[in-house]
Amino acid sequence: MTSSRGRSGEFDRIAAFVRHFARAQVPVGVGDDCAVLPGPSRGCELCVTTDSVVEALHFSRAAFSMEDIGHKALAVNLSDLAAMGARPSWFVCALEVPDWVDDVKLAGLARGMSKLARGADIALVGGNMTRAERLAITLTVAGEVPRGKALLRKGARPGDRLYVSGTLGEARAGLVAGAPAALVVRQLRPSPRLELGLLARAFASACVDISDGFAQDLGHICDASGVGVRVNVDALPMSATLRRFAGHRARDFALSGGEDYELILAVPPGRAHAFERAAERSNHRVTCVGEFARSRQRRFVDDRGEAIQPPRGFDHFAP
Amino acid sequence: MTSSRGRSGEFDRIAAFVRHFARAQVPVGVGDDCAVLPGPSRGCELCVTTDSVVEALHFSRAAFSMEDIGHKALAVNLSDLAAMGARPSWFVCALEVPDWVDDVKLAGLARGMSKLARGADIALVGGNMTRAERLAITLTVAGEVPRGKALLRKGARPGDRLYVSGTLGEARAGLVAGAPAALVVRQLRPSPRLELGLLARAFASACVDISDGFAQDLGHICDASGVGVRVNVDALPMSATLRRFAGHRARDFALSGGEDYELILAVPPGRAHAFERAAERSNHRVTCVGEFARSRQRRFVDDRGEAIQPPRGFDHFAP
Repeated sequence: MTSSRGRSGEFDRIAAFVRHFARAQVPVGVGDDCAVLPGPSRGCELCVTTDSVVEALHFSRAAFSMEDIGHKALAVNLSDLAAMGARPSWFVCALEVPDWVDDVKLAGLARGMSKLARGADIALVGGNMTRAERLAITLTVAGEVPRGKALLRKGARPGDRLYVSGTLGEARAGLVAGAPAALVVRQLRPSPRLELGLLARAFASACVDISDGFAQDLGHICDASGVGVRVNVDALPMSATLRRFAGHRARDFALSGGEDYELILAVPPGRAHAFERAAERSNHRVTCVGEFARSRQRRFVDDRGEAIQPPRGFDHFAP
Repeated sequence: MTSSRGRSGEFDRIAAFVRHFARAQVPVGVGDDCAVLPGPSRGCELCVTTDSVVEALHFSRAAFSMEDIGHKALAVNLSDLAAMGARPSWFVCALEVPDWVDDVKLAGLARGMSKLARGADIALVGGNMTRAERLAITLTVAGEVPRGKALLRKGARPGDRLYVSGTLGEARAGLVAGAPAALVVRQLRPSPRLELGLLARAFASACVDISDGFAQDLGHICDASGVGVRVNVDALPMSATLRRFAGHRARDFALSGGEDYELILAVPPGRAHAFERAAERSNHRVTCVGEFARSRQRRFVDDRGEAIQPPRGFDHFAP
């Protein structure tokens, strides 16, 4: 995956960076949605993740209000906690602030972030602010899980059912000119699936959230679990609004559009029915879209069983 | 401190941002070198801080090697742990990587950071990498202290002795063209005073590290503790190399040059002698440079008792 310019894909670059460090003596180190560390009480562990949103790359000043940016910076991090089944606890916020961000704009950013923080019951405990050319917000968030109960990427077994929450593809479609508000809002204001993550702890064997696209993030579960998967792409949950607006591109958006911040879950067959009922009782939409398999293959098929080649997920460092 | 452009100083901006969030129910929230949170065992607390180094603002590609940048990004964060008397535990690393950083350069960055991490016994447990126009590195580091033993900014009492570690002004002088290597290395490779911080827990009533300059960071102790201070500027520890190179500017560099990453400590008079002996036994240079006072005044005087007006510390957002 190394390009002619001497750069390699994002995951390769991260792996190359991490290789220089000693392996951390913690329950889970680099490589999952969160690290898992000894927690603040005997029975619990701390899940920690860090993620940045950067002007021009993750948001544009034209499309995003300051409130949207503040919301999204926190939402993408909370989604990693959701994928671990962790309950949000605290976060720190490092801001790189360019000159165009005056006090009014900064207050907007804070309002967007604090509203979501209140809703998720997570406390801002520290921060830092430096000047910069571009607005960038890097958060580190921490949440708690009962000891040994964090949902990892590596637990999926052959035969486990493949579930996905909510609907897919709308955040990507929301970037297209003329997209209806219902799609744009999914791009601007992603909703981390925190409650579903907590509920899923009792059922799921593995979990990941969708930032880079369903197909690519599903690949993380397969890689970590050493399993393959068979996906029925015609079962992927898509909204009527997306189908109407995106037409024949809707399925591509659902497969690899990215920024859905939905959860992909592996659920052992014996718990699948109970999981569906528990999700329904709590008003969480979950859809079974396939099954994990012993063979390492990742097969995407349609209702007729014909193979589909999924487009690649988003990779910031792709050649 | 609001400027005509509608921007205010860095600390005002941080305060304005934080005001939008609910006050965190933790031992120490926003406003000290680290937040203090419930720790991983009953008898300990977790100190957490986040800090960024940004290309062109905190380092230049001309003066800094990639190893220097990696070292400094971690060092400035470890210095915050030192100021709390915390023992380093884990950190996460968010990288914003521009195109000019190829795989070789990225490896250099990792080596500089991992060497310091090994020396400080701190584990990398997670990270994130995004593309960007400028290289920026935001770390969140965590360390442990025995419960209730973190060194805060707010503990200084009138009569406490004012100490500073090491020597001041060299990091700032290291930015001047033609500076000798001994000064430049203080700019490129700051040494966080972690061991001194651990030792100081038994003696000091308050502590802060010097990032923005001695005078300004001393002000944080005064603000938080509600005390004044009298500083003998002729007692400020300066190296012979600094005096020779910087001449009459040496004292200004020591007072407000910044990036020294030394510790400023308040020590009750009854423990001052024991503190000095303990520091000497452990080969830590500490110098008594004044005394805290009941009056809120901050007086900088020379050996003859004449008042000195200290230059302002570095403020990224100063008008």
